Amino acid sequence: MRYHRIPDETVRRLPVYLRGLIVSADQGREHISSQSLADFVGVDAWQIRKDLSYFGDFGTPGVGYNIERLARGIKKTLRLDTIRRAALVGVGDLGSALLSYPGFRMYGLDIVAAFDVDPKKVGKTVGGVEIEDPAQLGTLRQRDISLAIVAVPRAAAQATVDQLVAAGVRGILNFAPSKVTASKRVKVITLDIAMELARLPYYIPRVEQMSETTEDKG
Amino acid sequence: MRYHRIPDETVRRLPVYLRGLIVSADQGREHISSQSLADFVGVDAWQIRKDLSYFGDFGTPGVGYNIERLARGIKKTLRLDTIRRAALVGVGDLGSALLSYPGFRMYGLDIVAAFDVDPKKVGKTVGGVEIEDPAQLGTLRQRDISLAIVAVPRAAAQATVDQLVAAGVRGILNFAPSKVTASKRVKVITLDIAMELARLPYYIPRVEQMSETTEDKG
Repeated sequence: MRYHRIPDETVRRLPVYLRGLIVSADQGREHISSQSLADFVGVDAWQIRKDLSYFGDFGTPGVGYNIERLARGIKKTLRLDTIRRAALVGVGDLGSALLSYPGFRMYGLDIVAAFDVDPKKVGKTVGGVEIEDPAQLGTLRQRDISLAIVAVPRAAAQATVDQLVAAGVRGILNFAPSKVTASKRVKVITLDIAMELARLPYYIPRVEQMSETTEDKG
Repeated sequence: MRYHRIPDETVRRLPVYLRGLIVSADQGREHISSQSLADFVGVDAWQIRKDLSYFGDFGTPGVGYNIERLARGIKKTLRLDTIRRAALVGVGDLGSALLSYPGFRMYGLDIVAAFDVDPKKVGKTVGGVEIEDPAQLGTLRQRDISLAIVAVPRAAAQATVDQLVAAGVRGILNFAPSKVTASKRVKVITLDIAMELARLPYYIPRVEQMSETTEDKG
């Protein structure tokens, strides 16, 4: 696979900036300084300038970034400048939430297919998408679907990933809290929601907690 | 608030290492090299060594890290060495998925309370947790709940965060795709699932896609 010029950590932050820019544009703004964008998205201004330097400098001193041009630049860099069609496998509570989630459109992402092994779910429609039998996964390539979301139980995750890779999918967002492997040609991002929550206690000092508890009891 | 010695990016990776260590221990291993851990969790070995150097070096040359000791060290650093009680607000599809999700226990996290504005949901039990009226949010402090998950619609996110902060919550994981603000004393992590999916197309080269499409048609 080709060499990726932009570090993963920068790629992780670019959608954050993109969202900030889209919201700013919706508010009627045309330009934004790196400091204003920093305040808005919660990333340091120097980090933003460094991240944007990887793919060209769109800023004008004293004026800031042209929002529309910068958003277009980020979209192009992230290859979000065309609508990306995605499939979802596993229509449980999480899968249903994802099918009904309006936030994907902002990034040009469209979940156009859903699959579940439960025959009682097949044929039903959730979030405007009809649920199909996983036996139909082989049709993804001809339907121009190159992205997939895996929301199946942990035990079924690897087999699902294998099926998706065989069907030509090139990018997978995995919600199953387990390690899944795929060909080097396929990018897999595992999102363990528990892990995100697990980051929070670090920021809660023990001493302050104790003193608060004492105050409450007093 | 006190100075945080460990960079946010490292704090983000520590739960990843912790999961790798717990799974390795479950497989009966006692020691692991930074390279083995790197292969397992998908982070570079040098990055792991650097991250762990922030809070002490637990490795022995030629033997590797003692898994149990390192896991304990990470838990202590992340303040996950005691059970952390969390509340969930918003029991829609996503909230229901979170209440039923078994993965929180691995990190010592326990969702012990759930709230929803829908009177038809109040009193029902999901994932072993009885849903309460948000009017009860004020009881969180006395129930020793300092973490919360916000899974409400976008329009209700800020008001929910305000209520949680008033109730003494110190760490919030927000799933609503909107910017929410809180006192500096409260750590808010916003997890926009669409943003995670939006990172994937970057890793799918256009040229390969085109050639694949051509092959398929041929």
